[in-house]
Amino acid sequence: MTDDLGGVGELAALSRILPRLGGAAALVGPGDDAALLAAPDARVLLSTDVMVEGPDFRLAWSTPHELGRKAIATNLADVAAMGGVATGLLVAIAAPPSTPVAFLEAVADGMAAACARLSPGVGVVGGDLTASSVLTIAVTVSGSLQGRAPVLRSGARPGDALAYAGSLGLAAAGLRLLFAAGERDPRAVDALRRSRSALLAAQLAPEPPVHAGPIAAEAGATAMLDVSDGLLRDGSRIARGSGVALDLDPRALEAEVRGVVSASGCSREEARSAVLAGGEDHGLLATFPGLVPAPFRRLGRVLEGPAEVRLGGRPLGDEGWDSFAP
Amino acid sequence: MTDDLGGVGELAALSRILPRLGGAAALVGPGDDAALLAAPDARVLLSTDVMVEGPDFRLAWSTPHELGRKAIATNLADVAAMGGVATGLLVAIAAPPSTPVAFLEAVADGMAAACARLSPGVGVVGGDLTASSVLTIAVTVSGSLQGRAPVLRSGARPGDALAYAGSLGLAAAGLRLLFAAGERDPRAVDALRRSRSALLAAQLAPEPPVHAGPIAAEAGATAMLDVSDGLLRDGSRIARGSGVALDLDPRALEAEVRGVVSASGCSREEARSAVLAGGEDHGLLATFPGLVPAPFRRLGRVLEGPAEVRLGGRPLGDEGWDSFAP
Repeated sequence: MTDDLGGVGELAALSRILPRLGGAAALVGPGDDAALLAAPDARVLLSTDVMVEGPDFRLAWSTPHELGRKAIATNLADVAAMGGVATGLLVAIAAPPSTPVAFLEAVADGMAAACARLSPGVGVVGGDLTASSVLTIAVTVSGSLQGRAPVLRSGARPGDALAYAGSLGLAAAGLRLLFAAGERDPRAVDALRRSRSALLAAQLAPEPPVHAGPIAAEAGATAMLDVSDGLLRDGSRIARGSGVALDLDPRALEAEVRGVVSASGCSREEARSAVLAGGEDHGLLATFPGLVPAPFRRLGRVLEGPAEVRLGGRPLGDEGWDSFAP
Repeated sequence: MTDDLGGVGELAALSRILPRLGGAAALVGPGDDAALLAAPDARVLLSTDVMVEGPDFRLAWSTPHELGRKAIATNLADVAAMGGVATGLLVAIAAPPSTPVAFLEAVADGMAAACARLSPGVGVVGGDLTASSVLTIAVTVSGSLQGRAPVLRSGARPGDALAYAGSLGLAAAGLRLLFAAGERDPRAVDALRRSRSALLAAQLAPEPPVHAGPIAAEAGATAMLDVSDGLLRDGSRIARGSGVALDLDPRALEAEVRGVVSASGCSREEARSAVLAGGEDHGLLATFPGLVPAPFRRLGRVLEGPAEVRLGGRPLGDEGWDSFAP
């Protein structure tokens, strides 16, 4: 096949992919040794995330457009979780030579779509394309705090409200349905896409509340992170970082569980596990000393330590995602 | 085996790896959603490079310490090629669960060693660790121009001197010897390490002249890049970017060829190919309107277009490295 990476070569492939990523606001954009971006307040936020075919996504489930959207969205959430706004993205892709160039064009289209939707004006300013037997997408995001202090994991104080913005448990519930459909029957996945489109989107092309990051910072959030590994595991990170306990309100948790049951048709037990330990929603978990600003909703409160996550006063574990679960 | 990634898990592995990367000069370092770095002149250089087991390195040839050094050095060269100095590094590693944690500790040691040697005070400020069947190391570097203008590929003018800093052809000559030794006989590689240590180092753990980037910028370099894909291919990028011809001096080329023959014992023809099309040396190719500053050495001159690389007035091609050579 002449229209795959091995057929057309790196340079010709890049000449087709790069224009789809749109004109980003860069002082020096793609095509030189490095990109040059403005850092107006003389500081820059930097974060990187890798998605690997197999552990992180399946080509039987994700379209290339969805892969592009997810790779960008998860990185934008990391900058939002510091209270910042993204300023640029670097995309490194390692792909098999048999990969159709059209596949990577669709990934690029998805990336441009996620930027336009979640962080207008921000785009891909550089990257790398190389060969691998496993499709791997590594994205680095840069961001600006616009003069604000960064919102770390270490500032939560007893008496703060615990709040969350974005979907919670839907990504995990969507993944559960995809595993049930399997990878061998495209019709089963197509049927899911029709019957549970919002749920599948939460897993395959999440849209984290990126705009809520700066809102939280302006409202005085004392701690914040994006929930990628599950509410318990990521909540424990705030608890340990701040030396406090996070106490979930049983009624608030019940509302989250009911939402997942209704969206996915799964059992209450499965929904509870998705909410507490599911991960991949990339919503923002934050603590506020005063009023909780929209779009955050209250999940509980911050108490004196020991550093742990509790439910109505009773300690829970910190189960959640680990790339190399022992 | 309990001491591999799959046995100890992501979090425990990171707790062993991160301390080896040393205390980097960051406003917020590893452990939060994003790192925060100073950008003193309100701009930031960003570049990313991926190394994949197989196409980019072989575990039969490279030690993990060398992998770490190479991953850092190639990225530092990209910032140097803009005329900047590095300010921080992000490291994303995707690795098989069977990877010993000690292997990644040695990669981290190599990264710290490369930073200390090539860019003291700069370190790893963040990253990602995830599972893959193929060992993949993606590094992103940030840098500062310290108030200077970036040195692009587009500024070379007829009359400029063409010059180079760093080794040229040695990395390719080293790779040739490694291919000849093969991957099945560790003793053959060990013998090479003894008889051709400098040559193997050029391929396995290059030390690009990172300090020469700002020197070139201060001396008024009109164009610059790091030679990763070969002198002809990367030279053509300056030629096309600037709309000029680069004319190599036959005597200067002969000196480079003789150097490779003497270091590697290869034939003149092999050495010529390594110098012109070898790549992976990551030295700096630059054009200067005035005197050529040390450590650059003169390789030729810039002439009126057409945009091409010539040798003593005769056009050469632009053969060189392509990750997906058609």
